[in-house]
Amino acid sequence: MNASPPNAAPSAAYERLADRFRRIATIGECGSMLGWDAAAMMPPGGGAARGDQLAVLAGLAHGQLVAPEAGDDLAEAEQGLPADPWRDANLRLMRHAYVRATALPATLVEAMARASSTCEKIWREARRESDFPRVRPYLEEVVRLVRETADALAPVLGLTPYDALMDGYQRGVRAADVAPVFADYEAFLRRALPEVEARQAALPAPLRPVGPFPVDAQEAFCRSLSARLGLDFAHARLDRSAHPFSGGTATDVRITTRYTEADFTQAVLAVVHETGHALYERGLPEAWARQPVGEAAGMAAHESQSLIVEMQACRSDAFLSWLGGELYRTFDGDAAPYAPENLGRLWRRVERGFIRVDADEMTYPAHVILRFRLEQALIAGDLAVADLPGAWNDGFRDLLGIVPPNDAQGCLQDIHWYDGAIGYFPSYTLGAMAAAQLMAAARKAVPTLDAGLAQGDLSPLLGWLRTHVHSQGSLLGFSDLLRAATGKPLDPKDFEAHLTARYLG
Amino acid sequence: MNASPPNAAPSAAYERLADRFRRIATIGECGSMLGWDAAAMMPPGGGAARGDQLAVLAGLAHGQLVAPEAGDDLAEAEQGLPADPWRDANLRLMRHAYVRATALPATLVEAMARASSTCEKIWREARRESDFPRVRPYLEEVVRLVRETADALAPVLGLTPYDALMDGYQRGVRAADVAPVFADYEAFLRRALPEVEARQAALPAPLRPVGPFPVDAQEAFCRSLSARLGLDFAHARLDRSAHPFSGGTATDVRITTRYTEADFTQAVLAVVHETGHALYERGLPEAWARQPVGEAAGMAAHESQSLIVEMQACRSDAFLSWLGGELYRTFDGDAAPYAPENLGRLWRRVERGFIRVDADEMTYPAHVILRFRLEQALIAGDLAVADLPGAWNDGFRDLLGIVPPNDAQGCLQDIHWYDGAIGYFPSYTLGAMAAAQLMAAARKAVPTLDAGLAQGDLSPLLGWLRTHVHSQGSLLGFSDLLRAATGKPLDPKDFEAHLTARYLG
Repeated sequence: MNASPPNAAPSAAYERLADRFRRIATIGECGSMLGWDAAAMMPPGGGAARGDQLAVLAGLAHGQLVAPEAGDDLAEAEQGLPADPWRDANLRLMRHAYVRATALPATLVEAMARASSTCEKIWREARRESDFPRVRPYLEEVVRLVRETADALAPVLGLTPYDALMDGYQRGVRAADVAPVFADYEAFLRRALPEVEARQAALPAPLRPVGPFPVDAQEAFCRSLSARLGLDFAHARLDRSAHPFSGGTATDVRITTRYTEADFTQAVLAVVHETGHALYERGLPEAWARQPVGEAAGMAAHESQSLIVEMQACRSDAFLSWLGGELYRTFDGDAAPYAPENLGRLWRRVERGFIRVDADEMTYPAHVILRFRLEQALIAGDLAVADLPGAWNDGFRDLLGIVPPNDAQGCLQDIHWYDGAIGYFPSYTLGAMAAAQLMAAARKAVPTLDAGLAQGDLSPLLGWLRTHVHSQGSLLGFSDLLRAATGKPLDPKDFEAHLTARYLG
Repeated sequence: MNASPPNAAPSAAYERLADRFRRIATIGECGSMLGWDAAAMMPPGGGAARGDQLAVLAGLAHGQLVAPEAGDDLAEAEQGLPADPWRDANLRLMRHAYVRATALPATLVEAMARASSTCEKIWREARRESDFPRVRPYLEEVVRLVRETADALAPVLGLTPYDALMDGYQRGVRAADVAPVFADYEAFLRRALPEVEARQAALPAPLRPVGPFPVDAQEAFCRSLSARLGLDFAHARLDRSAHPFSGGTATDVRITTRYTEADFTQAVLAVVHETGHALYERGLPEAWARQPVGEAAGMAAHESQSLIVEMQACRSDAFLSWLGGELYRTFDGDAAPYAPENLGRLWRRVERGFIRVDADEMTYPAHVILRFRLEQALIAGDLAVADLPGAWNDGFRDLLGIVPPNDAQGCLQDIHWYDGAIGYFPSYTLGAMAAAQLMAAARKAVPTLDAGLAQGDLSPLLGWLRTHVHSQGSLLGFSDLLRAATGKPLDPKDFEAHLTARYLG
């Protein structure tokens, strides 16, 4: 199915809805740009006003979405005959957005915004001091409100409360689908991790390139690398921010990274990752721009696109053989650290650690599995916030055999829960698994894929992704998208096979 | 009168209006930031979407302003007793904004936006080719629509059509006030200009500092200079754009300039000018932020603040004696060009030229007087667009004794008319005159002013401006603001005295 023009004239009600959602999306673009600015450009004194600006935009978009006319037009448009799969999907997604938005009383939305904003501020102090009791009452309030939100959404969506939360990040994915996938992976990890560690211990220790690496040179390298991967800088920028991210809009993507003179690793790998996100946005179907069906298919789908570029493509032996030479030509010095085998050992090192964002691709899912279980228990009321640190440490010991020395390296490390984002974490690992599954399918379909990577050429892979993922927008849910692209729903075996080949091959 | 809290509780209707205008102002802030981004950051591919984003924001703000509830609340709030001069002024300004916005049918506003956007595009080609006939029909359409706009505004504002247009840029200033001021200056110029030219011819030719001047060093110098002048970079940024401007918001000002390696003059003087605008925004009364009365007092008032910093303060002998040393320490080379007397001769050179934006402070008003007369005739229907080039050249010869060699250097040079901005030009010269008048008053009131300038210290002047101009927001109209600050309404004699002292002293 392609993003072809609809094959029957849409109703007037549908056209009004399309206008409304175009307006909503355009307001969203303004917010997205201002969010990028806040992280990458804004002087500190602009922060308070920026918060107001984003709140006003969010309120305007929400007002457009929950207007009674939207409900009337939906009811009328849904009476029309099925005409075009894209338009039908678009209408379903409009209804879905409307149902989610109208299910929540304004008082709850505002209470949630206030509570998570306060909790997030306290969390920053609590993490710095590793003082969980300090933030506990605030997190309790956030969890209480998230549960209330989940309870309000569950009946109108026909989902369990936790699934209703997950649905907000990756539509259509349920805990019952995720749990067996994660269980399968857990079993694999328990078996494979010690083997990988033993194998790794027998290899020479990786050499680190020795800097300093001037930040301007790193930035120029990163920009040129991102362009080489396919990002068109007539529609994109690369800037700096405290935490790398990809933002902006489909025709004006803004990616960021951070630099340290001592090492280019973090900057380069973050740019590669964010470039994956950006290429997805750039490849969305233009004919459906600013319509729900033209958006990316969810957070797990988005993460699959950053990880297929970063983890599958750019950390492959083939790509490293090209990238090592480029890095050496740029930064000079001793050649040995830039040898592909060394870069592989350096950038694909498996290590049990406490911090999710620093984890390697093999142990990363363990971090997610722990959070997935704990957040389900929090929402179900089976775990009290007060018991979170203990449950965290027990779970961590069980999964990875080590215990965080303090809560800053344990249950205080991530912003998500403290900011009200519960149900988000699974997307990271679903994305990693989907990336492996898509890569396996692409490799079968595109014989030149690895030869391209060995020349720093992502275009064979990118062409396949554009056809099978990017151009599909939100036409299909996560599971159907994978089925259409790879012939099966999400299957952890491809990810496990990828890890086995890379670390035990 | 200070921006003190109101001394009686405002009505509920007033409070609702204050909320409404706060929302409108906040939407305006979003637009302002996105406008800055478009000029300073945006990759070219983002342009089309940005146009949509700004149009949606403008539509949302307009919708908030013309809502029937706004009219009801205004009528109700105006029944309340006068309570506080600030709140009363705020209410009057709300009414004024409402009256202007509701006077124009949506069809006219849209036709105007389309026509000026089209005309502006064609104008860029026409100017490049110096081909007035190419753009003539488009300008005719714009002028027709501007006249229609003026005719719609005039009766509701109780102004002539041209005054109704001027009112959109500098509230309360009328052609009948401006004409005698300009006539007075014209007489002065006819007398003084030949004398200045003779005097200048007898002086040594100015020496130009010899570059190249690395752009990064220029930028660092400009940033540090702007900070020295009083701009707090916790609430500001300095970036690059094709045309220097000051944008952003009161707590997050964004100024820009452009650089050329061959010469730092343009960059430095533009930054000084934009810093003047920025300091005004930063000094507006915080207690009335996002309310009409808390805004800058109009375009002429704004220009007075950029010009008092650029022309009055920073091009003074005192300031140049400090700045020359700073520039020399930064850029090195031959010391002679950095001598204050030489910088004075270089940066205060009076010359009859064709281009307004390149004009010195003495001949600049002649450019404005010509445009003021021609645009009044266009709006009155006394001058046909087809006759504009001839009228321009005749007027130019009469005022400055020279005739542009082509229309690109004549009636095609400025974007304003082609973009629908008629009634704007007088603000430049009203601002220049107000700057001289304010400087004279400040100098009397602040004995340390010039000693400060000689040390690169603007704070004595800035302190006075904050009290008498910045913190007054829009409490007073342009004329009353000058009267309160200087004891008299706009008087061209202070500007003439300034020029006489500087060029014939």
